[in-house]
Order: sequence, then structure tokens, then C-alpha cells
Amino acid sequence: MRMAELSEESGVPVATIRYYLREGLVPAGEHTSPNQARYNAGHVRRLKLVRALLEVGGLSITEVRRVVQAIASEAPTLDILDVAHTSLITSKAEGSEEDRAWALSVLEQTAERVGWVLVPDDKSTQALIGLLCTFRTIGHDAMLGDLERYARLAAQMAELDLAALRTPTTPESIVERAIVGTVLGDALFSALRRLAQQNEAKRLYGAE
Amino acid sequence: MRMAELSEESGVPVATIRYYLREGLVPAGEHTSPNQARYNAGHVRRLKLVRALLEVGGLSITEVRRVVQAIASEAPTLDILDVAHTSLITSKAEGSEEDRAWALSVLEQTAERVGWVLVPDDKSTQALIGLLCTFRTIGHDAMLGDLERYARLAAQMAELDLAALRTPTTPESIVERAIVGTVLGDALFSALRRLAQQNEAKRLYGAE
Repeated sequence: MRMAELSEESGVPVATIRYYLREGLVPAGEHTSPNQARYNAGHVRRLKLVRALLEVGGLSITEVRRVVQAIASEAPTLDILDVAHTSLITSKAEGSEEDRAWALSVLEQTAERVGWVLVPDDKSTQALIGLLCTFRTIGHDAMLGDLERYARLAAQMAELDLAALRTPTTPESIVERAIVGTVLGDALFSALRRLAQQNEAKRLYGAE
Repeated sequence: MRMAELSEESGVPVATIRYYLREGLVPAGEHTSPNQARYNAGHVRRLKLVRALLEVGGLSITEVRRVVQAIASEAPTLDILDVAHTSLITSKAEGSEEDRAWALSVLEQTAERVGWVLVPDDKSTQALIGLLCTFRTIGHDAMLGDLERYARLAAQMAELDLAALRTPTTPESIVERAIVGTVLGDALFSALRRLAQQNEAKRLYGAE
């Protein structure tokens, strides 16, 4: 199909598609003449994915590019999953040295109880350390009393997440699904959590 | 304390504090002269909270203002929790009419099995409908096969979330904690989920 049709099929304006092409978020079409290229169903799919990551997932153009490169790469599954999971983590070095030491020891205890291997330099560990320091800075570290229970729920969820990836499918889509599951899955679970909180709040406070 | 000290205590630059004051994110100080105001420990706490909501929670200035107004309001607990939980939901009317009808029926079935009351016009229901439509648009609706199990995990988590709020404390902080729990709690759980996914991926693919 030509550009005009690609735009209609995907619902993305032509100028936006050209921008995504320049930014490397969508692969180039097959050139049929110096000024004309042909696109296929793969381009339509990719455009919808890019839109979802930007608009629903709230990723930046740079993050989407990193994610799209992971989809295109042919590394072993574990490496690709690692990119999918960690390319989306943004962590800042929050907290004083003392706070960070406290956060690491809290995490180490939790990981040991839940049976996780904790790699201190890892991006996800660093992100968690930063978050724990933030809770402490604003004086809400008492809320972390249930950290182990939340970690156990996260472990149950990760089992569901990874099981969903194992359903046989095309080789490309295991990575794509890992990313969709990570970006949109977080948004979906947050929304489910809101609904659950509302129901629980009604149950607890509804008769007040 | 004066402005300079407030800045030092909170770690927030003076110009930024003035901006937050103008935007109504931080309550005004007590004026001791036309050009001078005095601030207290409450202002330090509030500044740290605002920073965390903006930087870690990724909220906009407008969202932080809404949240801060909820903290200051004196409505009954259930109403305040409702504001805390729904003021942070952004939902767009995604999807065609047919997709939305499909999403609503998926949600209704899930809610019935999990024992939730579903209010179709509710913001969190609308957010979920939009998200389910996005999964469908990008061709990943097969991932929703486990929706009920995720919903059950969300229900367990909501129990922990609400139980944490019931610990006796100052009246102001039940709302503040609801908001911290919602905004930072989502970020924290996402980070825990990443760590859990990495551990689960290593368990499944580590020997490849």
C-alpha cells in the first residue's frame, strides 16, 4: 500500500508517519521509485504499537526507539527480555548515602525471604532503592511495612507475565509481547488496582 | 523559618518554591511583614511531597494541585479516597463503539467473578475500557486471557493498600497516605514487578 493508504489503515496522519520514519520508530517502506515507497500490514501493526506506547504507555520518542530496536534484535530470549524489562526503567540516584544503605538492606531482606537474587548494580534494584529513599524522604516509610507481601504478589504476577509469553507464536512477537505486557500491562494493572481499591474502600467505609 | 532556610531544609531552590506557592501547591507562609513570611516544618514536608509527586510520580502541576486540594479538604473518608484514587486516572475515549462494547462485557464478566461492583460511567471503569481497547487495536488482546487472575491479585493488593491506611494517624495523613500509596505505590509495584520478572525469566531461560 502507499503512504495515503497506510495513514488511513493505521489512523495516523501522514505527517506523523513521516516523523516516525525519520525517528526510526517505523521501518522504511520498499522503494518503488525515488519518491514513492510501498508499505505492508507490518507497517500498520507497527504504527499502532508505536501510538500505544507513546500515548497509553507514556513513553518518550527515545524510549520507543530503544524498545523498537529490541524488537528487531535477534539476541537470545533472556537478553531480549532483559532489554524489554530494563529499557523502561528510569531510576535516579535519589537519597543520601545513609538512606541508600538502609534501602539496600531492606531490599536484601525482602529478596531473601521471597527467594529472589538481588544484583545491587542492576537497574531495577537501583530504581527500587531510589523509590524506597523517596518514601523515606517524605516521611512515609512506615508504608513499606508490607513490602514483603507486595513482593510476593509481584512474584505471582511475574509468573503470569512470563507464562503468557511462552504461548507459542511467531519469534518476533515474544519480544513485542514482553514490551506490550510491560508498558501497557503496568497501566492495565494500575487501573485494576484503582477499581479494586474503590471496591475495598466501599466495603470498609461505605456504611459510614 | 524564613524562605532561605526553607529552601535549605527541603532541598528545593528558592525560585522553585516561589513557583509552587504561586501555583498553589504549597500553602502560603505566615506574613511577618509585607515582604517577609515565616514557614514551618509543615511546609518542608509539603515541599518534599510535591517534589516526589512531580518527579517520581510523574504527575503534572495541575494533577498535583488537585491532589493537594484533596489533602486539604475535609470531606468524609470515602469521598476523599475517591478523589485520591480517581484524580490520578487519565482515560481517553479509545476504541470504536464495537470495541468498547466488547471491553465492557469483558470487564463485567471479570467483575462478577471477582465480586466487584462495576459502575460503567466511573472513571476507573472508563480507563480500563480504554486500555482493553488499546490491547485489541494493536492485536494483543490474547494477553487478556489472564485478566481475572490479575484482577484477583489487584483485589489482594487493594486489601493491603487499604489496611495500611487504617493504621491510626493524624487525620490529614490518611488522605496524604492514600495519595502517596497510589502515586508512589504504583511506581514501587512496577519496579517490584520488573525485579520479579527478571528472576522468573532467569529461572525459565537461564539454562538456555
